[in-house]
Amino acid sequence: MTTHFGDRLVRAIREKKAPACVGLDPLIERLPATLLKDHGISTGGENDSPKDASPRAAAEALLAFGWEIIRVIAPYVPAVKINIAFFERYYADGVRAYLELVKHARQAGLIVIGDVKRADIGHSTTQYAHAQLADIAHPEAGPVATPDAVTVNPYFGFDAIRPFVEIACTQGRGLFVLVQTSNESAGEIQGLELSDGFVLCERVARIVQAWACGEDLIGTEQYSCMGAVVSPRDLTSTERIRALMPSCLFLVPGFGAQGRTVAEVASCFKADGTGAIVNASRSVIYAYQDQRYSDRFGNDWRRCVEEGCKDFVDAIRAAVPTL
Amino acid sequence: MTTHFGDRLVRAIREKKAPACVGLDPLIERLPATLLKDHGISTGGENDSPKDASPRAAAEALLAFGWEIIRVIAPYVPAVKINIAFFERYYADGVRAYLELVKHARQAGLIVIGDVKRADIGHSTTQYAHAQLADIAHPEAGPVATPDAVTVNPYFGFDAIRPFVEIACTQGRGLFVLVQTSNESAGEIQGLELSDGFVLCERVARIVQAWACGEDLIGTEQYSCMGAVVSPRDLTSTERIRALMPSCLFLVPGFGAQGRTVAEVASCFKADGTGAIVNASRSVIYAYQDQRYSDRFGNDWRRCVEEGCKDFVDAIRAAVPTL
Repeated sequence: MTTHFGDRLVRAIREKKAPACVGLDPLIERLPATLLKDHGISTGGENDSPKDASPRAAAEALLAFGWEIIRVIAPYVPAVKINIAFFERYYADGVRAYLELVKHARQAGLIVIGDVKRADIGHSTTQYAHAQLADIAHPEAGPVATPDAVTVNPYFGFDAIRPFVEIACTQGRGLFVLVQTSNESAGEIQGLELSDGFVLCERVARIVQAWACGEDLIGTEQYSCMGAVVSPRDLTSTERIRALMPSCLFLVPGFGAQGRTVAEVASCFKADGTGAIVNASRSVIYAYQDQRYSDRFGNDWRRCVEEGCKDFVDAIRAAVPTL
Repeated sequence: MTTHFGDRLVRAIREKKAPACVGLDPLIERLPATLLKDHGISTGGENDSPKDASPRAAAEALLAFGWEIIRVIAPYVPAVKINIAFFERYYADGVRAYLELVKHARQAGLIVIGDVKRADIGHSTTQYAHAQLADIAHPEAGPVATPDAVTVNPYFGFDAIRPFVEIACTQGRGLFVLVQTSNESAGEIQGLELSDGFVLCERVARIVQAWACGEDLIGTEQYSCMGAVVSPRDLTSTERIRALMPSCLFLVPGFGAQGRTVAEVASCFKADGTGAIVNASRSVIYAYQDQRYSDRFGNDWRRCVEEGCKDFVDAIRAAVPTL
């Protein structure tokens, strides 16, 4: 576990020839009906719906679903990104399910990215870093497995991120700082024009690149354990951000259901085919609700997910021919 | 509960003549030795320290401590701010303790601000909003009480905040958007100069003011249910931000242990003495470690906290004479 995170991620991508990551962001109401039924959750009759499930039942259903997704995708992709928001929704039960899935995914040999988007000041951010990124092994309570890397928010500046960096350095972990996000409103703040001609997210890109080159952060594969979340918005700006951050691996959201094109996603990579890992969530984990798969594999939802994952990997391979 | 949040907060401040909020950010290693002992937690012998407590024991100690703090401060202040990071640190057990404290503080008649600093995109941020700001009452699992308001991060733009606003509108809740934070590195991003001459946090202030004036967001006391976290850095900039955000209540961190002066804090208020609530955390909740109190009240840590809270309220009253 103390191998440098950037090295681990680059090698895992190379090994599977797939700079691809599946995002586990499960909504209870989109889980397979059979799985919901197995957990005693109504699939939406006249007076109730899966949304009315108790937090415990919902968390258990998410856990069972996530467990299967991880098993199915593990042969094809090097990494899984688990978004804690979908688990936190079910309070303590959800957090327990999230941590179980992190452990399971690590045991399945996947690199686990905890999509937690945390940051705070002083002691608070230290607590977040320890909660979200540091393994513990308590004599009585037993071990808690945390992700290999997490996403963090840059708005506070570096001292909010430092505790994550310290754990990354000592425990072979990583972090991805939000630079350009994939939502419609992203430009409202991230697109503000600065006095030096840059837009904010480009300046954040430069700042994160400087942070990422801190002492002992660069691995033998020439990438930092500090990467960046960069959603391609247009080719020119993405190419500029790629050029501004030579030491950072990009975690690229927006592919699949969010509709980024192959060319847009390709612009997040360097010419040698390294430098990014592309995430797809809904297009893979809900593949059984896509007629292209359900027509072929009927109610076998696991098979649909498997084929959805393979198609996703193929699409990324085609987008990055130098891989 | 469906009274407008801004109205509730303004009236609660008026009722207690105290625009003051106590921050509950408890570190296990700073809890009173007697309380730790009651929970079977070592107070730091040669080979172990409170930091080695099991997550469950630590969460229970934080819960017991928070419970006492809430009981002690409730007569003096209108609001408590509970920082989830310090609870999340202990995983599912910690989250359960956090929610217990939220419920307890609401029952004690306090307005509860959940300091969660969340934000994400699309479905993810909807999950956060429901987890952190919406009450539920499940037929089997029973009710879960959430805070009256939460803190959120602006980096994504408005659509990341919209689900919080929707809950705020329909359930009489509120939110505070980070504008200027109190940490040393805050200026690295928030202080960037824009092409129109503003610095970023001033521009964010203008943007948040516009969001805060959305349909149905302004209450009868003329404040929005969307406020802002504004730490005073210098008088000029704070006065400018105050002027830019007439519809927003400010949640003001940095008083007490973080060292903001009375004049700096006063600049967050309008001339009529409304417009802000000042938070102090460590100077109140750890008052028993301050010789000014421990010399007078010995091992009676609750009494120390009570006196620390009263002194904090007096200092704020002196700072805002028009109250």
